[in-house]
Amino acid sequence: MKIGIVGAGMVGSSAGFALAIAGYANEIVFVDKNEALAVAQAEDISHAVPFMSATRVRAGGYADLAGAGIVVLSAGVGQRPGESRLELLGRNTAVIRSIVSEILAVVPDPILLVAANPVDIITHITASISGLPPHRVIGSGTILDTARFRSLLARHMEISPQSIPAFVIGEHGDSEVLAWSGAVAGSADLVSFAAQLGKPVTEEVRKAIDHDVRNAAYKIIEGKGATYYGIGAGIARIVRAITRDEGSVLSVSIQTAHVAGVDNVTLSLPRVVGARGVTADLLPDLDHEEFEALKRSARMLKDLSNSLGL
Amino acid sequence: MKIGIVGAGMVGSSAGFALAIAGYANEIVFVDKNEALAVAQAEDISHAVPFMSATRVRAGGYADLAGAGIVVLSAGVGQRPGESRLELLGRNTAVIRSIVSEILAVVPDPILLVAANPVDIITHITASISGLPPHRVIGSGTILDTARFRSLLARHMEISPQSIPAFVIGEHGDSEVLAWSGAVAGSADLVSFAAQLGKPVTEEVRKAIDHDVRNAAYKIIEGKGATYYGIGAGIARIVRAITRDEGSVLSVSIQTAHVAGVDNVTLSLPRVVGARGVTADLLPDLDHEEFEALKRSARMLKDLSNSLGL
Amino acid sequence: MKIGIVGAGMVGSSAGFALAIAGYANEIVFVDKNEALAVAQAEDISHAVPFMSATRVRAGGYADLAGAGIVVLSAGVGQRPGESRLELLGRNTAVIRSIVSEILAVVPDPILLVAANPVDIITHITASISGLPPHRVIGSGTILDTARFRSLLARHMEISPQSIPAFVIGEHGDSEVLAWSGAVAGSADLVSFAAQLGKPVTEEVRKAIDHDVRNAAYKIIEGKGATYYGIGAGIARIVRAITRDEGSVLSVSIQTAHVAGVDNVTLSLPRVVGARGVTADLLPDLDHEEFEALKRSARMLKDLSNSLGL
Amino acid sequence: MKIGIVGAGMVGSSAGFALAIAGYANEIVFVDKNEALAVAQAEDISHAVPFMSATRVRAGGYADLAGAGIVVLSAGVGQRPGESRLELLGRNTAVIRSIVSEILAVVPDPILLVAANPVDIITHITASISGLPPHRVIGSGTILDTARFRSLLARHMEISPQSIPAFVIGEHGDSEVLAWSGAVAGSADLVSFAAQLGKPVTEEVRKAIDHDVRNAAYKIIEGKGATYYGIGAGIARIVRAITRDEGSVLSVSIQTAHVAGVDNVTLSLPRVVGARGVTADLLPDLDHEEFEALKRSARMLKDLSNSLGL
Ligand SMILES: NC(=O)c1ccc[n+]([C@@H]2O[C@H](COP(=O)([O-])OP(=O)(O)OC[C@H]3O[C@@H](n4cnc5c(N)ncnc54)[C@H](O)[C@@H]3O)[C@@H](O)[C@H]2O)c1
Ligand SMILES: NC(=O)c1ccc[n+]([C@@H]2O[C@H](COP(=O)([O-])OP(=O)(O)OC[C@H]3O[C@@H](n4cnc5c(N)ncnc54)[C@H](O)[C@@H]3O)[C@@H](O)[C@H]2O)c1
Ligand SMILES: NC(=O)c1ccc[n+]([C@@H]2O[C@H](COP(=O)([O-])OP(=O)(O)OC[C@H]3O[C@@H](n4cnc5c(N)ncnc54)[C@H](O)[C@@H]3O)[C@@H](O)[C@H]2O)c1
Ligand SMILES: NC(=O)c1ccc[n+]([C@@H]2O[C@H](COP(=O)([O-])OP(=O)(O)OC[C@H]3O[C@@H](n4cnc5c(N)ncnc54)[C@H](O)[C@@H]3O)[C@@H](O)[C@H]2O)c1
Repeated sequence: MKIGIVGAGMVGSSAGFALAIAGYANEIVFVDKNEALAVAQAEDISHAVPFMSATRVRAGGYADLAGAGIVVLSAGVGQRPGESRLELLGRNTAVIRSIVSEILAVVPDPILLVAANPVDIITHITASISGLPPHRVIGSGTILDTARFRSLLARHMEISPQSIPAFVIGEHGDSEVLAWSGAVAGSADLVSFAAQLGKPVTEEVRKAIDHDVRNAAYKIIEGKGATYYGIGAGIARIVRAITRDEGSVLSVSIQTAHVAGVDNVTLSLPRVVGARGVTADLLPDLDHEEFEALKRSARMLKDLSNSLGL
Repeated sequence: MKIGIVGAGMVGSSAGFALAIAGYANEIVFVDKNEALAVAQAEDISHAVPFMSATRVRAGGYADLAGAGIVVLSAGVGQRPGESRLELLGRNTAVIRSIVSEILAVVPDPILLVAANPVDIITHITASISGLPPHRVIGSGTILDTARFRSLLARHMEISPQSIPAFVIGEHGDSEVLAWSGAVAGSADLVSFAAQLGKPVTEEVRKAIDHDVRNAAYKIIEGKGATYYGIGAGIARIVRAITRDEGSVLSVSIQTAHVAGVDNVTLSLPRVVGARGVTADLLPDLDHEEFEALKRSARMLKDLSNSLGL
Repeated sequence: MKIGIVGAGMVGSSAGFALAIAGYANEIVFVDKNEALAVAQAEDISHAVPFMSATRVRAGGYADLAGAGIVVLSAGVGQRPGESRLELLGRNTAVIRSIVSEILAVVPDPILLVAANPVDIITHITASISGLPPHRVIGSGTILDTARFRSLLARHMEISPQSIPAFVIGEHGDSEVLAWSGAVAGSADLVSFAAQLGKPVTEEVRKAIDHDVRNAAYKIIEGKGATYYGIGAGIARIVRAITRDEGSVLSVSIQTAHVAGVDNVTLSLPRVVGARGVTADLLPDLDHEEFEALKRSARMLKDLSNSLGL
Repeated sequence: MKIGIVGAGMVGSSAGFALAIAGYANEIVFVDKNEALAVAQAEDISHAVPFMSATRVRAGGYADLAGAGIVVLSAGVGQRPGESRLELLGRNTAVIRSIVSEILAVVPDPILLVAANPVDIITHITASISGLPPHRVIGSGTILDTARFRSLLARHMEISPQSIPAFVIGEHGDSEVLAWSGAVAGSADLVSFAAQLGKPVTEEVRKAIDHDVRNAAYKIIEGKGATYYGIGAGIARIVRAITRDEGSVLSVSIQTAHVAGVDNVTLSLPRVVGARGVTADLLPDLDHEEFEALKRSARMLKDLSNSLGL
């Protein structure tokens, strides 16, 4: 499948690099208002290709997106130190609006994969202005937070993160919810599982992991100015679920009719992702506290949408 | 890592083919008392290699196993139509005894991966006669039954089997236990998950899946005389967990000190598998009925061991 | 991409197993006149899937091929000990005729991938009766012989077969031609390359390799009754070139307008394979002897076609 | 295998990201004098892991390299716009000296993989000061230039770069030599191959490709400030050749006893790379002009070494 990537900054290029290494795309086209950057990224990644796959990588204009099955929206600006994800909003909304109409002029029925932050709001806007069915406008949402959650659990328990199907849901941001109570590995609930491994999830451990998942981005931004490898691989993972029509359960963000008592809100839940985009939504088993937290997260996003007149 | 495969029949060769395609082994050496067969399998698989990986594949004698990190025991005879797994026992025990001493003479500290049936008993014997620590003598156990369970659930729910971490435990055989009650996907318990997908796990569905998991081998044997691709890939999967030191949770069979009130019995549980072999065992969340079934399975295996004087 | 496999014997099932392990297909449908066999192969392979990819594997009738991008033709009968590839012809031609019309009724514009032997003749017939453009009817041809050639060279030189781009061309059979003189690795011609490695390609080595490439199938058949892993992986390799639109150079067989002075003959040359099938043919650098051998191979195939009234 | 990466800048982190995605390493440890950066890179990449492999990624001090099989040297500073590779030398030599002794104190017998520029000189120095056998101190050399060459040829001929085994040799820098005359694909020499494809390698095409290979880095640096994805994947490719003991032919730089009449000089040739490092060197077929160019490149590197008193 041909994949378009609009926004050839660190996130877009990391996604393209991951796609080329893993061989998930037949062709990648980068579009960026900074044309020299798009060309440089395409060249740099195309020099990785001879070692790995047969992916064709190049830079182009919107017209070169013709025939793409998926277009990734990674244009915008990274989070600055101290900046909240929602503060990024103003800077990114305008960018997305102009891009979406350019894409749709060339690719009438794409799956749009939104990575630009604040990803839930941008996904909401993208779905609305594109007129595409919501299940074809997929925000990366908490896919990254879920990866962080699993990565930390893996490190604590000294097992493979692939063996820990735990999820983070809600907003990709401060109000997100770690779905501890439904989390299970090896068909034992996570707490029992960890205890059996001799690595109990004490209240302290739990708090530390909760804190680290929420603050992972801030910590990375402090050290290197921005985050991009994790999300780049996350985008590649979603692309694989679509191009291989996997029906994989991934925590991604789409416009959702009802969740936790809130209507028409865009946030992340575990969802089934395949060739047609998202085909089903799942509500994890949540305890009272988690459910209330999800409600607050949904409410917050809804209020924000409302206040923006979306 | 160099991998030895003793028994170059359909199971051993399918495992070798899977290893070569996936690139999980640097070198594969087949040993079989039927030397011409070992040579033919090695040649056939080595013709697959130029398309896929740089694995070196050859046939040899026991001396050629020197330096192997893992030796797969797939010698023996396949299940005949109508034959129970336990009936195979007599035919396979003698074979294993002679093989193990040959291997240990050349590879002093291998991880042994037992596929020969009845796999739990053969694994028990292998651990005993080899004198290796039990966590380095790993039976493929219910890894295949677990795959069948996930495959059927995936088909029913129309999602990817990788998104369904459900397990089968106990004996690889008629008394095995499908651990339904701890099974969870997307952080929702399996039943709720399936219902949300509009594919409820009715009593009927459950019975059908239970029946099909238990009878998968019989059905395949009816159609093609033996089963080998599933178990071949299962062996390759265990090998990957070891060579990449993954710490993956896989349902495999090892000598276990206590399970469900039974001492020193060899059966499958979800276990953590990495470079050192099995590093931890897990008991899934089981309801009363499942626990009783596991007890019966353990009891049955124990009685059999006892009756064999093991 | 959805892949159909008509003929669920050892070759078809090995191809399906390789596809599922490598994750090159989204869906595989087996069709065989022996329905129980097709079901058994699909089940066995589907039990490999949970360890490897999200490929859906099932058995079906021709109607279930709807939507397939590629259909593999592996129906027929394997080579018996002592039987020449051409003697297989009578047994396989009739089978193919009936199958092709069934496929085209459901999939109007497939790429057909022919593995049935004698593969050059069967490919010729398939292209003719299907009315498809010749570049969409691809015989596996000498892809397997090329793999054998590289595998033997790799073993002799103790380097990776992926670093040896040598080719076998002409008939998949006794008259095939090892293109020694154009063979180059590391940008040095093969003979110089091997000498530099201290593994000279003496006349003796050359004869031994030539002999072993030509007799590989016979040797394997002696040891195990039939060959299937090599060709199964070869088919998977061609499928990858198509589904990923690679433009890879592979030695495959298609109806060719002119080669070595012979018109409209179906044999193998290195060809460029991508999403549209074969997009270009290449004539390797051949010395006089090799060119004459290719001519003889082409002539022989042409005479055979003529004698069959094709 | 455990891989150390000293220098967690863009090159080191791109290599680590590629390794984690492709699953070539069991464990990656980043060391950087900027500890916060090493931590940030390790965290960012570890969030990619749950989607891809079971690689453990973390930051540490030199002591944490204990047990590593390969240590990548990517510390130093990137090329600034307008800066020649050799001007980087002063800035990078001192860095390497201090690093090497720290590594050897912990890992007595590593394979060192040098990426720091000017890579040939730094590799020469590293081999000398480490006292390791030269075949275990491998500079990435022209592996990247070779990838660029293949990538441009692939684009021109519209075929897969994996099907074009052409090499760049000599210095990784302005004096490097494109080994056109020995280049062959599909067992036809490259020029004939391209002509057959209807994409002739005219003098103009040849000049353009030569120019673009030589100037690829400058062009990318202009657009994005530095190059890293190509070299990151190149490092991962060398790592794979070692960990899987492939015996792959790669153009890498090591101290070489004699080349083109120059003694003890460090530059790139196609070399066989496997578990023990480089096991053989190859001199491509070169025409007179190419051979003279290689001589000049070797002479230049030798003079530079001499002038530095190495
Ligand atoms: N979803 C997540 O989990 C996640 C994680 C990290 C970053 N992000 C977000 O991804 C986005 C990209 O981050 P980055 O680090 O790559 O930023 P970046 O600044 O490196 O790249 C952004 C690119 O977008 C381009 N761009 C801006 N306006 C454009 C327009 N109108 N048309 C085309 N291109 C345009 C810029 O030229 C720049 O190259 C940001 O919104 C960031 O917050 C999301
Ligand atoms: N664990 C599972 O899930 C599972 C699944 C399928 C089959 N199996 C078992 O795997 C084993 C192999 O099955 P198969 O289908 O490959 O059988 P097979 O008959 O095709 O192959 C068995 C091979 O073992 C060889 N052999 C016998 N005695 C030997 C000895 N003393 N030394 C060396 N080689 C010897 C035979 O020559 C033969 O090639 C059987 O025990 C079968 O029941 C296990
Ligand atoms: N191209 C190569 O390099 C290569 C290598 C090995 C084998 N082969 C050829 O591949 C073919 C298959 O070999 P195999 O070992 O799998 O044989 P096999 O006997 O195991 O399988 C052939 C299958 O075709 C089925 N079949 C027969 N007639 C059919 C029909 N009319 N419709 C549907 N299915 C039908 C049979 O039921 C059987 O399951 C043979 O022609 C063999 O010579 C080619
Ligand atoms: N071989 C090639 O083909 C190729 C291609 C591109 C870049 N490079 C070279 O790779 C090197 C790294 O480039 P980059 O873009 O990653 O630069 P960078 O500036 O992003 O990273 C260099 C890192 O090295 C660290 N470092 C410096 N001194 C150190 C010390 N004493 N100990 C530990 N860490 C130290 C710095 O803190 C920094 O994080 C440069 O020499 C560059 O020229 C080589």
